[in-house]
Amino acid sequence: MLYLVGLGLSYESDITVRGLEIVKRCKRVYLEAYTSILMATDKAGLEKFYGREVILADRELVESGSDEILAGADTDDIAFLVVGDPFGATTHTDLVIRARELAIKVETVHNASVMNAIGACGLQLYTFGQAVSIVFFNEHWRPDSFYDKVMENRRIGLHTLLLLDIKVKEQSWENMARGRLIYEPPRYMDIATAAQQLLEVEEKKGLQAYTPSTPCVAASRLGSPTQNFKAGTLQQMAEYDAGEPLHSMIMLGRQVHDLELEYLYEYCDDKEAFKSAVVEDQKFFAPAPYIAPEENFSD
Amino acid sequence: MLYLVGLGLSYESDITVRGLEIVKRCKRVYLEAYTSILMATDKAGLEKFYGREVILADRELVESGSDEILAGADTDDIAFLVVGDPFGATTHTDLVIRARELAIKVETVHNASVMNAIGACGLQLYTFGQAVSIVFFNEHWRPDSFYDKVMENRRIGLHTLLLLDIKVKEQSWENMARGRLIYEPPRYMDIATAAQQLLEVEEKKGLQAYTPSTPCVAASRLGSPTQNFKAGTLQQMAEYDAGEPLHSMIMLGRQVHDLELEYLYEYCDDKEAFKSAVVEDQKFFAPAPYIAPEENFSD
Repeated sequence: MLYLVGLGLSYESDITVRGLEIVKRCKRVYLEAYTSILMATDKAGLEKFYGREVILADRELVESGSDEILAGADTDDIAFLVVGDPFGATTHTDLVIRARELAIKVETVHNASVMNAIGACGLQLYTFGQAVSIVFFNEHWRPDSFYDKVMENRRIGLHTLLLLDIKVKEQSWENMARGRLIYEPPRYMDIATAAQQLLEVEEKKGLQAYTPSTPCVAASRLGSPTQNFKAGTLQQMAEYDAGEPLHSMIMLGRQVHDLELEYLYEYCDDKEAFKSAVVEDQKFFAPAPYIAPEENFSD
Repeated sequence: MLYLVGLGLSYESDITVRGLEIVKRCKRVYLEAYTSILMATDKAGLEKFYGREVILADRELVESGSDEILAGADTDDIAFLVVGDPFGATTHTDLVIRARELAIKVETVHNASVMNAIGACGLQLYTFGQAVSIVFFNEHWRPDSFYDKVMENRRIGLHTLLLLDIKVKEQSWENMARGRLIYEPPRYMDIATAAQQLLEVEEKKGLQAYTPSTPCVAASRLGSPTQNFKAGTLQQMAEYDAGEPLHSMIMLGRQVHDLELEYLYEYCDDKEAFKSAVVEDQKFFAPAPYIAPEENFSD
């Protein structure tokens, strides 16, 4: 059996009781270590907590070496640990498809991921549209495909969860070109960088998918002991120091209810200013006012 | 401290290790018991697993008696247990706002909820739009506000998670009118009923937000030992016996990638027919084909 086990967001102890029982009894345990990190622990911390060895699975192993991971899983139990939920922001459907081809059974132990825990900011998960990724801009590559998606969400009044780039075990262009397996230190995009990139793309496109005054919520270290939210405008986010990673961000849509707004006040520097920004922003993409058809008594 | 603790979807042991430690040491432990159920256990099962008493919190207590729940939480630890995640489909922001007013600290222990675990069907959570609720139709009330939302999602190619009604501790009209506190047995909407209601509303509205051939995925007992998925058309869902509750459903949008489709084949009776339905359905709301502007060499 292949067990896909979600680890949740932060602590060693965010694993479920059922997940821990499985990890303890599996023959081999892999930790997917390239799409996210546990904020309050690391491989050594997990090994101590589980009382057993954990094998780091980098991108090469997962994408090219899945048969190595699955070896013997037809008779033995193998666990594949994923930060958050195994079917959260990054899915591992390719590993499951390969397991099916090898007639290996698969069971999932779900856990919280950013995709649902973000509800802790007080905005209803119901009124989120599609999620988008914001990746690090560089000199050569400034991908802005998120822009149209944010526009689509906001046109129908929905909030957008912005997932910020994580670069783990990346090579520099030079090292890659020379075939040197030297990796850059990990980089985690912060709120300010994400907001600056959003502002740059709006300035370039000029279609007012959003403005510098559009209300946003910054989520820092979601699910960790130092979790923090901050509500403000996109412009304020571009200057906000959100502290240690990981960060994610929400851009609000028009559908903000009074209870949601009241909840967000807790995270505002200036409630009145934030409320004004929300009311002002609701004018964008507002449905046309209803005009009753003229009654026609002739004929 | 008030701890909001997510219980996950099914087993007693779906609680996180950290959540269990908190539950064991809290002075009082409430179980929110009216918006969802744990599929593989009940109050007695939880009390045995936790080794302590659990107080059932029904709608009246949570909505009118929150001060009773919060009593003493400024000095003692109180836990409020929620099936899924505390900020999942049903949020408890009102309880948190009341705690803030009373200067009581609040900490959340997140867990999986239908809002992220639904990713186990193989469709990317990224490409889900707003979630909608399908409530039981009766003679007097056939609410169809979901229809416009499904249309909005499908116009931009997104999938829709349909959350199916749960009726726990409801009174009949007659008992309510006579002020008798007699409750009906719990009812959980099944896939077939939801699909029939969807078809009825499409027939009434006639705007082709979807058709009987629109591809869907049925999720039965998500996260439980008997979890099951079924992929088929909406018409097939209207005749599908999905077995024991709880059920939820996804209506697909245009954005289906090859890997997602390959994953869904596992859940089809007839792969080719399902693939045809997906391809056919992608024509709805497809963006207009790109036509290059005519070049104009005059002037």
